Amino acid sequence: MKIHYECIACAVNQAQKIAEMSTEDVVQRKKAMLFIAKKLGEFFNEDSVPATDGGRLFLELYEFLRNDDPFEEYKRLSTELARDVVSDMGRVNDLKTALKLAIAGNLIDFAVGYDPRKAEEDMLRLASGELYIDHSNELFSELENARSLLYLVDNCGEIYFDRMFIERMREEFPGLKVYVAAKEGPIINDATVEDLREAGFDEIAEVVSTGSKLPGTPLEYASPGFLRLFERVDVVIAKGQANFETLSDLKDPRIFFLLKAKCTPISRELGVPKGSLVCVRGRY
Amino acid sequence: MKIHYECIACAVNQAQKIAEMSTEDVVQRKKAMLFIAKKLGEFFNEDSVPATDGGRLFLELYEFLRNDDPFEEYKRLSTELARDVVSDMGRVNDLKTALKLAIAGNLIDFAVGYDPRKAEEDMLRLASGELYIDHSNELFSELENARSLLYLVDNCGEIYFDRMFIERMREEFPGLKVYVAAKEGPIINDATVEDLREAGFDEIAEVVSTGSKLPGTPLEYASPGFLRLFERVDVVIAKGQANFETLSDLKDPRIFFLLKAKCTPISRELGVPKGSLVCVRGRY
Repeated sequence: MKIHYECIACAVNQAQKIAEMSTEDVVQRKKAMLFIAKKLGEFFNEDSVPATDGGRLFLELYEFLRNDDPFEEYKRLSTELARDVVSDMGRVNDLKTALKLAIAGNLIDFAVGYDPRKAEEDMLRLASGELYIDHSNELFSELENARSLLYLVDNCGEIYFDRMFIERMREEFPGLKVYVAAKEGPIINDATVEDLREAGFDEIAEVVSTGSKLPGTPLEYASPGFLRLFERVDVVIAKGQANFETLSDLKDPRIFFLLKAKCTPISRELGVPKGSLVCVRGRY
Repeated sequence: MKIHYECIACAVNQAQKIAEMSTEDVVQRKKAMLFIAKKLGEFFNEDSVPATDGGRLFLELYEFLRNDDPFEEYKRLSTELARDVVSDMGRVNDLKTALKLAIAGNLIDFAVGYDPRKAEEDMLRLASGELYIDHSNELFSELENARSLLYLVDNCGEIYFDRMFIERMREEFPGLKVYVAAKEGPIINDATVEDLREAGFDEIAEVVSTGSKLPGTPLEYASPGFLRLFERVDVVIAKGQANFETLSDLKDPRIFFLLKAKCTPISRELGVPKGSLVCVRGRY
């Protein structure tokens, strides 16, 4: 997906949040925002992918602010919250409900301005509704015949819902070899391979790095090892907006995008109302 | 007032609104926002005044979009609304209430995202409350002894409340010569000299132009004629945030700023809670 017109202002608003998360000092924040004003034009053009080029800009801002993880405390809080919510829910027997909860878990996403305290209530409500586009039957049918699944996670916190979904899939499709990929290092509130290990993913899957800190899965920045894995797996589940932004142009039918359309560009791209939950196959 | 860190993202968000007001075509909007991304760094530095340098950026965007008044329709609607509200209110006898209504009228300000339909209700509520900083007694005492008043208006719509206030002042201080200044041409939803004439200001005051389209009253861009007037008047009433931004650094005790602190930078600068109504003298 290429940038839509709203992506420029959104990137600047996110940069402001990064500055606010990094320092209480308004003088430093002002220097950071003037740095963004100077740099912005270098990062965006007609063909920019918002997650990739926004992410590159944010990493430069991290360097400018000398802070390699401004969202550390926020991620800790959202991790605690998600762990509590998942633990309270107990076992979810239905595979489709587990899928919907994994999508709903995507709303623990501070980068686009959500309050995590509303998360539990909203997730249960969301998971009780219908998906606006629902290719989950196709996904489950592909998984019946698949030998391998690559699961691309999105944010911290949310990964506890992913783990619940993956555990259910492993019970349903016992022959499936599952790889779970996260970022090489911290960027906004995205989960890293370290976060996956802390959440016990080693016990249920093979944890891999995309080879990059950038949001989503921009293949041009991925490691050769990740690329080989990506090419040979049978099914890919890609969580969240950034994975959609970076992989949708492949039109790859192996990929199923699971996300909540939180912003206008994503909902315009998918042709769904803002706020919709979707499980959409890559060829569409 | 120099820019605060939030002013960069606010300028980009306002640029997006300008693009949205100018065209329905998302391709054109994207070109406009990419133009902003390229230009942004040229317009802002540590010493930028937000209204002035933001305004310069917006005028370049107007040129890029080949639209010299994207807010034309919006201004027409807010003018109609304000005219109705003022007409419904009838005569306001109390000078202080008229002053507070002139400040409250400032919330017909689409440029920072307000819905005009809530305006009537909110303005009456606001005018019934206290000013957070209230130098109105000093203002009225200065006007007792003054021969001339320069009244710097802010937005369309709002000027109907200004007219009501000016009419009350003329009754209270009959010897006062009143000049009312507006922009030379359209910028966002600011009132122009043409808007003043349409609102009948010619009948109650001498209408003058600042000599510039830029928001507020940036003296470095004003006409020589306006500068001479500005220097010789006894009292200045400056409405709205942009007039505060462009004139506050003068620390001129002739100026009284009447505004609602709608954003964090203005409220931080004044040391008042966001949303406060103030009548604050220039020397403070």
